[in-house]
Formats: sequence, structure tokens, C-alpha cells
Amino acid sequence: MKWARGYTNDGSQIIGVIDNDELHPRDGLGSDTAVGAPVPLSEVTLQAPVQPGKFIGLWNNFKAAAEKGGMDHPTHPLYFFKSDSSLSGHGASVELPFAAGRVIFEGELGIVIGKTCKNVGPEEAAEAILGYTCINDLTSLDVLHADPSFPQWTRAKSFDGFGVVGPVIETDVNWKDLTIRVLVDGRERQSYPASDMILPPAEIVSHLSKDMTLNPGDLIACGTSLGARPVKPGMVVEVVIDGVGGVSVTMTSPADGG
Amino acid sequence: MKWARGYTNDGSQIIGVIDNDELHPRDGLGSDTAVGAPVPLSEVTLQAPVQPGKFIGLWNNFKAAAEKGGMDHPTHPLYFFKSDSSLSGHGASVELPFAAGRVIFEGELGIVIGKTCKNVGPEEAAEAILGYTCINDLTSLDVLHADPSFPQWTRAKSFDGFGVVGPVIETDVNWKDLTIRVLVDGRERQSYPASDMILPPAEIVSHLSKDMTLNPGDLIACGTSLGARPVKPGMVVEVVIDGVGGVSVTMTSPADGG
Repeated sequence: MKWARGYTNDGSQIIGVIDNDELHPRDGLGSDTAVGAPVPLSEVTLQAPVQPGKFIGLWNNFKAAAEKGGMDHPTHPLYFFKSDSSLSGHGASVELPFAAGRVIFEGELGIVIGKTCKNVGPEEAAEAILGYTCINDLTSLDVLHADPSFPQWTRAKSFDGFGVVGPVIETDVNWKDLTIRVLVDGRERQSYPASDMILPPAEIVSHLSKDMTLNPGDLIACGTSLGARPVKPGMVVEVVIDGVGGVSVTMTSPADGG
Repeated sequence: MKWARGYTNDGSQIIGVIDNDELHPRDGLGSDTAVGAPVPLSEVTLQAPVQPGKFIGLWNNFKAAAEKGGMDHPTHPLYFFKSDSSLSGHGASVELPFAAGRVIFEGELGIVIGKTCKNVGPEEAAEAILGYTCINDLTSLDVLHADPSFPQWTRAKSFDGFGVVGPVIETDVNWKDLTIRVLVDGRERQSYPASDMILPPAEIVSHLSKDMTLNPGDLIACGTSLGARPVKPGMVVEVVIDGVGGVSVTMTSPADGG
């Protein structure tokens, strides 16, 4: 099942499941209750499929990247939050502010929470996962390392539009089978298997649920691996996970020149 | 004017302004539009006065603490986000999970945003501030420093209930006149003047608005100064800012023993 969210031509927002090239409205994310008539996908402008209460991003969660960086494998997720206002969806334009300096794409697998959970083990955590989505966790390297006394993970990750999510949430997929790829102007620049994860999705969710209550719509970017690269204005950057979908944005210069 | 939010005896939630020991409902934070009859405060259970989309916390923003720690004065706010689920209000019980280890209180002044703003100068930023509130930015020292490769600001600050906010948002106050105090079991343990801030509120909001769009209800904890101390189960910890109010919580042991 594929969950999506978007605006119809009359400006109303719907969330629902995709079937037969139509979006079938439901009364909330993960709900079985239909509300209203299906709308042809051609008449829907897709947004990011969720507006998460928590937009969590993991660092150092792939073995190949840890090996290259000489980093130990964490036994608990190491993470930051991206801002609510960083969220963007398929087809968006994302500005590269001058203040952000050098920015890189990071193609990632996203976990979407479907049930409230707190302090749960891996089995219950697995049941709290609604499905998976594609994420481009855009990151300013210059901001991240601008102050030697304080690594600015939050600020580096939170510029408007820097959290690209979509196009859908796929519920019927085995994460171990997935490959995360990034295409820049159609050319493959990053590709790695999800199975190389250090902490797998159910363990991530279990650990996080011991730190804080997770709620439906909360979103977890599982971290990236080797191959993240700089982006520049004019580039079209697409994160593709076969079996889930592809989410594409266009990088732009600042509208006001600064 | 004092803004507050809470539940009435029949379970409905209202937000509004306090006048004559009554809560006068409005149709949203900062709105001039009255909705429904006033409710005596004695019939309202106060919550945190906002559910912020972004709960931002500053580090190293007081001169006395910077001097003691030998830290430079930042020219741009250094910050993290606290989770949505960390929010708690006046009168709450806050669990100290074993996983959090040593936890300290941090009494802080909170800025509440009243208008959407992006990329604004200090004057416009000042106008986007709705008012001020009291914050206890509870922090796990053991989690913060658990992994030498990655300071865990987000996790250390985001346990359920670790973001104590309230009791109200005061709009008619000059931040320079305020003193932030923390009382533990009625005894004063922290006290410092807001005027010792490195980056003042309008500059904080201006800088943050250049990183990301700020929206009504977004909340900024201005950072703490000297005197933050450990908390233990059974302690009653109150952050008091004369002219704004006092927000008090009781620290408890984990309900499930773990």
C-alpha cells in the first residue's frame, strides 16, 4: 500500500492511499476509514507524505561509511532533529542560501511511525512502523563545522526545504531488499544497500522509544552511506529507492540574491 | 497581557488571555478574536501555553557562564531542538529515566514567536515576538557526553517532560528587567539577570529567521547561566521570573522501575 498526501485542484488537502492511479482519501495517516471520493492522481499536487512532529536524522549508521571514517559502530542511535520548516516534497525547488555555504545531498531511507510507542522492544517497534519513504537529508557542511566549540547539526540540516521526503510511504516492502540511490541530473552519484545498516529499523525505533514517546507521522532518516556530494543551483537531485519511489527537487539560487 | 492554555473541567482545551482570574478564550495564539465565554481559572488545568512547531534551545548565551567556561561569545546562536514530546507544563510530574543518568535543571527565559518571519532584521524580529515565558530546560549530562564522537544535545534534552514551559506568556514586559531564578523545594539555587545575555532576543530571532522560517508558537529557550544543578526524584523544581510567573514540576522515579 502506498500512502500519499497532496492538494487537489480546488486547494483542499487530502491524505490517503494510492490505487489504480487514484488517491483514495482516508481520515488520517494509517487509518482504515475512507472519507470522500477518490481523486485521479493527475489532479493532485503531491506534498511530502507526512508533516512529522519529530523529524529525526541518524548519524553514523552505515558500516561502509563507518569503516571509511574510522568510526566505531554505535550501540544506540546518534541523532539530531531537522526543523518542521525544512520539509519539502517531490517537485519542489530548494533554495541554497549563501549562508549555508557548501551543501551536500544525502540519500537516505526514511521510517514512518504509524502507532504511538514508548519504551518498546524491537518486536513491538517493528509493528509501530507504518512504512518507508525516500529522504534527501540536505546538509550544510560549512555551517556544521563553523564553530569548533559546538557542531551545528541542527542548523546545518534545518534550512527551509532541506528535508526532502516522498513521494509516498510504502507499507509492503522488506527494508533489507532496498537500495538507496541518488541521481543528479539523471546520473547516478550515490548507491548503497539498506542491508549495510548498523542499527536496523526495528532496533532504531525501539531505542528511540526509550528516549521519548514516538507518535504517528514521526519520521526517522536512517543515515547515509558513502557517496554524498555537493549540490549547486540548477541541479535536479532525485533520491530513488526501487520498491518505494523517487523524490526529486531542483536546487536554486537565493530568490533575493542573498 | 498573559496568554495561557489549558483544559476545562469538561475536557475541552482552550487558549486565551487571563483577566480578572478568568481565561478569556481566543481563536488562536495571539489572536484578537474572542470565542466563547470566559472560564474561571479555578476551573482550568493549565498546560504549557504553546505546543511549539520548533522548540529551540540556545547554548552559550550568557556572559558569566561563557567567562567561567572560557568560551568565546558566539556571533550567531548555537542551538539544538528539544522534542515535541518533551513539553510539560506547570504542576506536571517529570520522570527521571535511569537511562538519563545525571540530570540538571536549567532555568531559562523563553521567547514565544507571534508572527511568521523569515530573513528579517532585528527590528522586524522584535515585532514578531509575542511575549516571554519561563522554561526549565532539563538536560541529561550523562547522555550528552556518552559518546565522544557525537555530543548528544538532542537526546539529552528530549526525554518526555524535559521541556517545562509556563505558566503563561507575558506580552507586557521588558526582557532586560527580568531575573531568572530556580527554586528547589522552595530554596533558591539559581539566579541571574536576563540582561547578561550575549545575543539579545531580537537578535536571536533575526539570526534564526535567516536559518529557517519561524512560525507562531515557535519557542526559543535563551540558554542558561551559572548555577544549573542536579535534580533527584522527589524534588519540586520551580523556575520563577518575576513579571512573568513561576512554573513548577515534581521530579519522580521511573513508574516502571526502569
